[in-house]
Amino acid sequence: MSTTTSVTDIVSSAPLQWPRGFRASVGSAAIKKAGRDDLGLLSMPSGATAAALFTRNLFAAAPIEVSRRHLRDSRGHASALILNSGCANAATGPRGLANAQEMVDAVAMALGAAGESVLVNSTGVIGVQLPMDRIVPEIARMTANLSSSEDGGTLEPFARAIMTTDTKPKMSARRVHCSGGRFVHVAGVAKGAGMIRPDMATMISVLATDAEIDAQTLDRVLRHAADASFHRISVDGDTSTNDSVFAFASGVAGACDEAVLARAFREVACDLAKMIVCDGEGFERSLSVRVTGAPSRADALRVAETVASSLLVRTAITGGDPNWGRIVAAAGRAKVAFRPSDLELRVGGVLLFRDCEPCPADRDAVRAAFNGNHVDIEISLGATDGHEAEANSDTFLSCGLTTEYVRLNAEYTT
Amino acid sequence: MSTTTSVTDIVSSAPLQWPRGFRASVGSAAIKKAGRDDLGLLSMPSGATAAALFTRNLFAAAPIEVSRRHLRDSRGHASALILNSGCANAATGPRGLANAQEMVDAVAMALGAAGESVLVNSTGVIGVQLPMDRIVPEIARMTANLSSSEDGGTLEPFARAIMTTDTKPKMSARRVHCSGGRFVHVAGVAKGAGMIRPDMATMISVLATDAEIDAQTLDRVLRHAADASFHRISVDGDTSTNDSVFAFASGVAGACDEAVLARAFREVACDLAKMIVCDGEGFERSLSVRVTGAPSRADALRVAETVASSLLVRTAITGGDPNWGRIVAAAGRAKVAFRPSDLELRVGGVLLFRDCEPCPADRDAVRAAFNGNHVDIEISLGATDGHEAEANSDTFLSCGLTTEYVRLNAEYTT
Repeated sequence: MSTTTSVTDIVSSAPLQWPRGFRASVGSAAIKKAGRDDLGLLSMPSGATAAALFTRNLFAAAPIEVSRRHLRDSRGHASALILNSGCANAATGPRGLANAQEMVDAVAMALGAAGESVLVNSTGVIGVQLPMDRIVPEIARMTANLSSSEDGGTLEPFARAIMTTDTKPKMSARRVHCSGGRFVHVAGVAKGAGMIRPDMATMISVLATDAEIDAQTLDRVLRHAADASFHRISVDGDTSTNDSVFAFASGVAGACDEAVLARAFREVACDLAKMIVCDGEGFERSLSVRVTGAPSRADALRVAETVASSLLVRTAITGGDPNWGRIVAAAGRAKVAFRPSDLELRVGGVLLFRDCEPCPADRDAVRAAFNGNHVDIEISLGATDGHEAEANSDTFLSCGLTTEYVRLNAEYTT
Repeated sequence: MSTTTSVTDIVSSAPLQWPRGFRASVGSAAIKKAGRDDLGLLSMPSGATAAALFTRNLFAAAPIEVSRRHLRDSRGHASALILNSGCANAATGPRGLANAQEMVDAVAMALGAAGESVLVNSTGVIGVQLPMDRIVPEIARMTANLSSSEDGGTLEPFARAIMTTDTKPKMSARRVHCSGGRFVHVAGVAKGAGMIRPDMATMISVLATDAEIDAQTLDRVLRHAADASFHRISVDGDTSTNDSVFAFASGVAGACDEAVLARAFREVACDLAKMIVCDGEGFERSLSVRVTGAPSRADALRVAETVASSLLVRTAITGGDPNWGRIVAAAGRAKVAFRPSDLELRVGGVLLFRDCEPCPADRDAVRAAFNGNHVDIEISLGATDGHEAEANSDTFLSCGLTTEYVRLNAEYTT
């Protein structure tokens, strides 16, 4: 996972606001706790395009089922997205499905839009029904209070409304310089992929741009961005019933070069993915594993993910322990066919293992490499040609496994 | 993983001793800590057969390399096995390989056996060289002190000598009733698959029988036993550089029906596998996941292992939390194509989820199901025909993930 810094001249940071054409509103239906916002509504102008990636879990939640169908029926167009926190509406049977449908119908009716143009997702407790008697009236109120960035609206209220176990709202934005001196914007919010209360799960992200981009291209840009970001992080390896990434394009700022727009989407998505990892439950220290010179790019990813997900590596990282044997052992069980004697391991730039033997290394430098806020692991698997080594490389981001993670997830709440 | 109880008439428990024909001895080379046994030697009569399963980790330790070669060269025959704890002799380069070879040569010379008939393994710290100056003289002393069960020798000293982070020795034995009123014995020892000190790893098991059985059949019996036991457990999912299971047959008690012998091997291996899980670091509570009615047996295993290995399930188990949503969600991400509406979930015999909906269940019964020493999870995936449901079933054993596991594994030791 990486953001590219060589394009600061055409992609730059931007205020944390929704791009032009979008209007947002939040509300409170006391779904889990009274007095905090737990509903977020985002609306787009007629003709806005939409794309989404949904969980591959067989037990996808009811709202995922509805959104998947609507996106297909509308051929990638949308007028609104309604999200709630505090209840995942997952494992809720036919009643859950009817409730998800009722949420989109309430939005569609209030906005005068077609039902199939409204998307929906939920996050929170699994196996509990939504309090529709409080949600439907609140949706009506929210549609009357939609505000745009021109009205001074920022990303933050929406980012806060979808938080569950997150300790901070997650937002990022970029400005893209297009031909003719025009600008378009890309902005995004996310909620984390962890659980503090035992019944909670889900990562959700919403990316939005005012660029004009057809549904098919938007889908490609979204997949590219997610692949470089949300698909390269792990907190606990559990794919939830509600995971989703939405992308919307209002089109009001005009067309833009796809490659540059894709770069802005990727940067925003990578920002959000890093924020998710660094707000993982019990977070103390992040780690990244970069693998180069693998037999293929897929192999590089497999080794990087195996090392970054190893419980033994992750606990050692938490302990600040320069325990490179676990890193080498995890690489060796990744089911990738490389020659063991080709592996070189560096942590924080310090060479630790080469030719199947430990390397003499300065003890203080090694200790420092394992004790910062971030532990930077680099594994080279033998391709010496610079270009090939770079092509068959990948990076995965995770965090140390902490006693606090276990404590929070073992907590009895029912 | 299961032991069969319907054969108690022909396979029964037995004293915890090595079978006839085996002689054992332990010694202390102060490899990691002075004053405790850290070497175990097992010898067999000429003509004894041998089989072994070794780690698939690309960074297999030096002794694994030596044993693999010797087993191949001897075509499945052995005269001795030498094991040490306190140092894994892994990631130790050419010098480590020479040291492993020196260990087997020292045993072979003292016993007057061919070098290729001696097998070896090590367990303990990775990346550290063995203290050969203390090991070689100790081997000479041990070969002079070999004792058999007839001399009153039991499994325990050997089982203790190979312990690293284990809190108790792991031993099991069975007596097999053969035709003609004869008996043969199967006995085994094991050390655990966990880490308390950050550099330690490895599970090792040694199974022995006095039955007469050719090398090829022994290999088949061993694979069958390991498949039902050691391949159906997980403590942290990390395959170590030194994992191995050895099987030896002295042949002195004569031939025996393969199916009955296989059953005895399986029972001993299942006993040892359960002991490993229940002695995992920070152990508080075990869990088993039985999946029936899957599309295939491999699919049943995949679902069972995914659920049993899920961090979210394992932390919930530690908390005694009746959090079935996590179990269902883990089953749904196992990449097995079943119909969600076919899944039925029972925990401790209590039906919790059916037809994609929670089932009404007695709250106290549910709480009890999640709060015993063992949590028994049953997942049915739809095949209603009893025979087919049984055929496409499998069971996986694991334990709750505890804060103590994380604390022990994050501890700084270098």
